[in-house]
Amino acid sequence: MDVPLICYDCGNTATLAVGARCDCGEPYWVATDPKGFAWPESGERSLWRYRDLLPDADPTGLAAGAGGTPLVRTPRLDDDIGARVHAKVEGSNPTGTFKDRGSAVGVAAAADAGYETVGTVSHGNMARSMAAHAASAGLDCLVLVPADAPAERLSLLARHDPTILRVEGDYGRLYDESLRVGRERGIAFVNSDTPLRVAGQKTTALEIAESFAPSVPDAVVLPVSSGGHGSAVWKAFQELREAGLATELPRLYFVQTAACGPIAEAWERGDRTATPVDGGETVAYSIANADPPSGNRVLAAARATGGGVIAVDDDAILDARRALSTDAGLFVESASATALAGAHRLAERGAFEGDDDVVLIATGTGFTERDVDAPAVDAATVELGALDDAVSERMD
Amino acid sequence: MDVPLICYDCGNTATLAVGARCDCGEPYWVATDPKGFAWPESGERSLWRYRDLLPDADPTGLAAGAGGTPLVRTPRLDDDIGARVHAKVEGSNPTGTFKDRGSAVGVAAAADAGYETVGTVSHGNMARSMAAHAASAGLDCLVLVPADAPAERLSLLARHDPTILRVEGDYGRLYDESLRVGRERGIAFVNSDTPLRVAGQKTTALEIAESFAPSVPDAVVLPVSSGGHGSAVWKAFQELREAGLATELPRLYFVQTAACGPIAEAWERGDRTATPVDGGETVAYSIANADPPSGNRVLAAARATGGGVIAVDDDAILDARRALSTDAGLFVESASATALAGAHRLAERGAFEGDDDVVLIATGTGFTERDVDAPAVDAATVELGALDDAVSERMD
Repeated sequence: MDVPLICYDCGNTATLAVGARCDCGEPYWVATDPKGFAWPESGERSLWRYRDLLPDADPTGLAAGAGGTPLVRTPRLDDDIGARVHAKVEGSNPTGTFKDRGSAVGVAAAADAGYETVGTVSHGNMARSMAAHAASAGLDCLVLVPADAPAERLSLLARHDPTILRVEGDYGRLYDESLRVGRERGIAFVNSDTPLRVAGQKTTALEIAESFAPSVPDAVVLPVSSGGHGSAVWKAFQELREAGLATELPRLYFVQTAACGPIAEAWERGDRTATPVDGGETVAYSIANADPPSGNRVLAAARATGGGVIAVDDDAILDARRALSTDAGLFVESASATALAGAHRLAERGAFEGDDDVVLIATGTGFTERDVDAPAVDAATVELGALDDAVSERMD
Repeated sequence: MDVPLICYDCGNTATLAVGARCDCGEPYWVATDPKGFAWPESGERSLWRYRDLLPDADPTGLAAGAGGTPLVRTPRLDDDIGARVHAKVEGSNPTGTFKDRGSAVGVAAAADAGYETVGTVSHGNMARSMAAHAASAGLDCLVLVPADAPAERLSLLARHDPTILRVEGDYGRLYDESLRVGRERGIAFVNSDTPLRVAGQKTTALEIAESFAPSVPDAVVLPVSSGGHGSAVWKAFQELREAGLATELPRLYFVQTAACGPIAEAWERGDRTATPVDGGETVAYSIANADPPSGNRVLAAARATGGGVIAVDDDAILDARRALSTDAGLFVESASATALAGAHRLAERGAFEGDDDVVLIATGTGFTERDVDAPAVDAATVELGALDDAVSERMD
């Protein structure tokens, strides 16, 4: 595909046909010219509202339905965070996570370019998203998963009937190998930090920004795994600054799970480079990336915006997940709850002022983890004839 | 609450403080004056875009995030239906179903009127939705469920920490009793066909209509249970006609599960009144309402629009559910799949022309039924070093 790319770090340029990674080792993203971009006046609700900042594509089916998710105030979380808290509800995407944004752009662009097969390396939300978007577009889909991926998760994926291959070997190497195999065999791989996916993921931030226009929020807090989404959020705000629509960038805070937090560890050390870790078990398994391909790019984003990268432990993640359900009505996956857990920790360090607008990106629905930390059900049984008494006993 | 009501059948008027049902036995809906209503120019994405047609309320939190769901084309379903098929993806609401629209309006109006507690009779999607919206708004929530409601479903509900009461006795009577108890004890019950819920549910149809403006779709096909949603869709198109925004109404087709289809049975008999049935087991349990409170109103809607009411069996429902996953990328609950199953059956009867625009309302996410009809996972295991061969074997 003839999409123009540029390296965020060294400025090298290329096109997507050549590859997703610069010779300097860092990932490319799509080169754009945001000058003259204005907030659209169209009534378009999906992410294609921002098509002037996206690669050319003619979306149909599910691809046309991604994005346009709610940004809701969560006033009952304000006191704990010491700021005005908002949540971007990415679970409202068609397959229940933010991944649909990148899949929509990736699959639409691949279909336009004549690809008949798309692919991805994932055993979770991204795989489901790619398979669903491919199904809608009538493309074949190849999903490469680790050999030990739990059958339960693959069962959800299999609903959309992709070809699934379990691959034995290093997961980080599989990521790169899949891109090579894809180039050689005409399969459009849209992995977690590849340029088309990052282009689509920008729209999370564009929607947030438009909600606050002409202002911008003071801080955005989001989970980080490969670093693709985090990179995209940074890119979006950079583009808005170039377009004259944001005079300053929000502080971007990225949150990892402590059991597997290579980017947070690098940040703590003051390093510009994330190095692989031996990740442990964590409830936030979907962001447990031991060797994140866009780790350095996220470190750059945190530095450039005055933000940071932190890690939170499983107890804090589960506490935050419960608080989102009971105090904001949002049932999210554990990985998403890291945003609130991280915001708590940042608040303790004095990161926010009382009049700050802090946006948590709730990246995905909790339905994928309905059995995790399931509450006991406390429900008395009463006769219909005794309803009045039972209600007044409990609710008065 | 001082919301003006009118009976769709006999024209009697009342206010919500008095009750939800007319002396003639039929349900009230909210009286509106749609004359002068025009499609809004605002960029508001939620259902509050249509606040000129809604009861006064000042939504915050989750209530402000309901609605604004995608309407997507599903071209791979066209051939089977013999029409241009679209799906309204209601699973994109904050708690994963269309119920959030009614909950948003009901909870926001109750909060504005000073209620501290809201309630509902439901053991499924509506209960989860009410509990989540109450949690977000800081209201208490009372959920009345049948004594035999499965613990698994209550566990999802309990995430939002409502007070749950299991009630032994007739479910139809519980519906009416809850409204009386609510009036007497100052609890705002928002049941499945009560006026505020129906007002919120109108917005499904308003969004569909605006997507087709200045035209309207030829047919809308949706599941029907209590008849609240179906009534709301009818009301919305009536309002648009009054406002001069729809010269004719789409044919409204309502689909029930054959195991429990009192409205479809009445329609087949040519009756204007639905009578209770002894419902059997069905995969589409969430629309298995043996004594639907708005059954007659749905029959009126089908007559008035030249549509109909039909029933489909579990095999057809599961086939349709699989087709939505594999050919449209939409993983929906079984009850939602009745819309496609019903459209198939209607197509066989010659209900559609090739250039008809047919909208299926996919009422809720499939995640709530992830174990129902789960596919076997067919995934070979290969070594990373053998990836090239494995891929070319399968994808060339």
